[in-house]
Amino acid sequence: MPAIAHIQTDHYLIPLPRTLEDSMHGQMSDFEVVTVRITDRDGAMGTGYTFTCGVNGGAIANILSREMGPHVTGKDADLIEAIWKDLWWTFHYGGRGGPTVLALSALDMALWDLKAKRAGLPLWRLLGGYDPRVPCYAGGIDIDLSPEELVAQTHANFEKGHRAIKMKVGRDRLSEDVAKMAAMRDAFGADMPLMADANMKYTVAGAIRAARAFADFDLTWFEEPIPPDDPAGHARVQTEGGIPVATGENLRSLWDFKTVIETGGVSFPEPDVTNCGGVTPFMKIARLAEAHHLPVTSHGAHDITVQLLAACPNRSYLEAHGFGLEAYVKTPLLIENGHAIAPEGPGHGVAFDWDRLESRRA
Amino acid sequence: MPAIAHIQTDHYLIPLPRTLEDSMHGQMSDFEVVTVRITDRDGAMGTGYTFTCGVNGGAIANILSREMGPHVTGKDADLIEAIWKDLWWTFHYGGRGGPTVLALSALDMALWDLKAKRAGLPLWRLLGGYDPRVPCYAGGIDIDLSPEELVAQTHANFEKGHRAIKMKVGRDRLSEDVAKMAAMRDAFGADMPLMADANMKYTVAGAIRAARAFADFDLTWFEEPIPPDDPAGHARVQTEGGIPVATGENLRSLWDFKTVIETGGVSFPEPDVTNCGGVTPFMKIARLAEAHHLPVTSHGAHDITVQLLAACPNRSYLEAHGFGLEAYVKTPLLIENGHAIAPEGPGHGVAFDWDRLESRRA
Repeated sequence: MPAIAHIQTDHYLIPLPRTLEDSMHGQMSDFEVVTVRITDRDGAMGTGYTFTCGVNGGAIANILSREMGPHVTGKDADLIEAIWKDLWWTFHYGGRGGPTVLALSALDMALWDLKAKRAGLPLWRLLGGYDPRVPCYAGGIDIDLSPEELVAQTHANFEKGHRAIKMKVGRDRLSEDVAKMAAMRDAFGADMPLMADANMKYTVAGAIRAARAFADFDLTWFEEPIPPDDPAGHARVQTEGGIPVATGENLRSLWDFKTVIETGGVSFPEPDVTNCGGVTPFMKIARLAEAHHLPVTSHGAHDITVQLLAACPNRSYLEAHGFGLEAYVKTPLLIENGHAIAPEGPGHGVAFDWDRLESRRA
Repeated sequence: MPAIAHIQTDHYLIPLPRTLEDSMHGQMSDFEVVTVRITDRDGAMGTGYTFTCGVNGGAIANILSREMGPHVTGKDADLIEAIWKDLWWTFHYGGRGGPTVLALSALDMALWDLKAKRAGLPLWRLLGGYDPRVPCYAGGIDIDLSPEELVAQTHANFEKGHRAIKMKVGRDRLSEDVAKMAAMRDAFGADMPLMADANMKYTVAGAIRAARAFADFDLTWFEEPIPPDDPAGHARVQTEGGIPVATGENLRSLWDFKTVIETGGVSFPEPDVTNCGGVTPFMKIARLAEAHHLPVTSHGAHDITVQLLAACPNRSYLEAHGFGLEAYVKTPLLIENGHAIAPEGPGHGVAFDWDRLESRRA
């Protein structure tokens, strides 16, 4: 068996090319990245990572190095379901959300990378294999931009190969969000897939009001209109607002997704492999969505996630957004004519530039 | 304003007098305690704490010392609602559950202690004041005990002043749980308040089967029959099983409680002040229960929680269980004829023996 021999955890602070801003997280100048490297007794290695908006990376690294690493050392790396269930319950009381799940996500990702490398398969083939060409969109963190700046940013994204765009909404004046949306439709026409992301800014009534103000712009989805704690509220926003709702970047388990899906609150479930518990629950969430006749989209970690959505017949758009990590990865995501392409090499295909990362140690 | 001058965080490992065992956490030989001491610019101090079953204390201490402490230093310690909301949203992405909420709970508790001390009031009077005599029960962690050992433990608890008892259930053989319950009723009669706690052992169907097997023993409640992620499942257990359900020690927010209460899945909401976000959300949960015509019970931290339930007209039983911390506290909980008594000194009334704790540093 491929027994786990060693786990290395590292914590980095990655500066963003420019300060980003959305409605609830405010200004972000850095992202934290916590990496995990799992080596088995044969010397094979898998890598995983998670990230934060700038806080709690220390706790995540502590959980991995102090607790989870020693806990799984010596176990059969192939038995990911067994390791996952054991970790979920061992860490349940001080876990089940927060840094514990982000740590678990990184560790689980590393185990799947290791498994795929040992099998000599790209992860998307190992997980079932559907289509390596995954529709994607450029996810902007751009609430602070003017209509003109947003249009200019979108032209630049088209030059990079994008054909679909998500913009932030949730300014204090709703009319300013509407003006930006109008500028986007004027510049890029009626058919460009356009999403709007409120980052939990609104109350239920406020989200319904906003959705109705956005009604003329044929949005593909309205993302995180309200905080994640109110599944019934999501259902009201979707039904009364009249725009499909996407949510998931702040849900932390398969069961969180089950609840909001069953309540009728989401049309585009949007798990993040770095915070939903890893590849293991991401795939279960994608399959749960399929059972409910729903497409699945994604949040964050586009380089890994392209592999996961390439294994899903119900994949919708991949969110392409790298949070500045691109400069520390030797394997940039390939984007062609609105599609991200899952590579054919073994594993999840993301090779960190460890030397360059060294200068960013937190 | 009483500006926060300094926050000290400490992490201890407290050995238990004997190894404890329940259905899902397995054997526990130590508890972790993370303490917070907040000093204001006038030199007044408030203390708070949280605990774990033995893992993730390092992450909690890291969040407090690395992130939350610096974040709140300089703020007005009286504006607890403002500090709480700011911390919730600042730590939301890597928070909203897990160690983040346990850290927040300890910090919030220290702020309430500080406020009550400055006001010269015991916390239970500051929070509204209802009745310092709070009905309580002895919460055993005793799934491994035989019927005879359980009866002997209960006699000892009666000698300590207890008149109500909670026992663990969830053994692999249901008939063994039933035999222990029968022994308790034989020894202590039909009227002793008796609760059973499964620590999330069962499936929904398994919990209904168990509840029906317990039907003859007139349980006050059936606690945590299933994992916390399935509110609708709780409603089924309660309705089809026929015994009131208690749950809450694994819910991590006011909104988690709102969801399970509205789903009809709980008759005894059971927040834990050390993991629901602190005194601030504990009191809101208690008031939410009151609005739903429900009694409120509690989990853990009996020394602090007696103050909170003493401010609630809908208080049910306080769980009396100290997890070995009693030996490191100068102010043991006073229990008289089935009631715990909230003291009249200022603050929450718990004074740690810091010198003795020093030997238990993690």
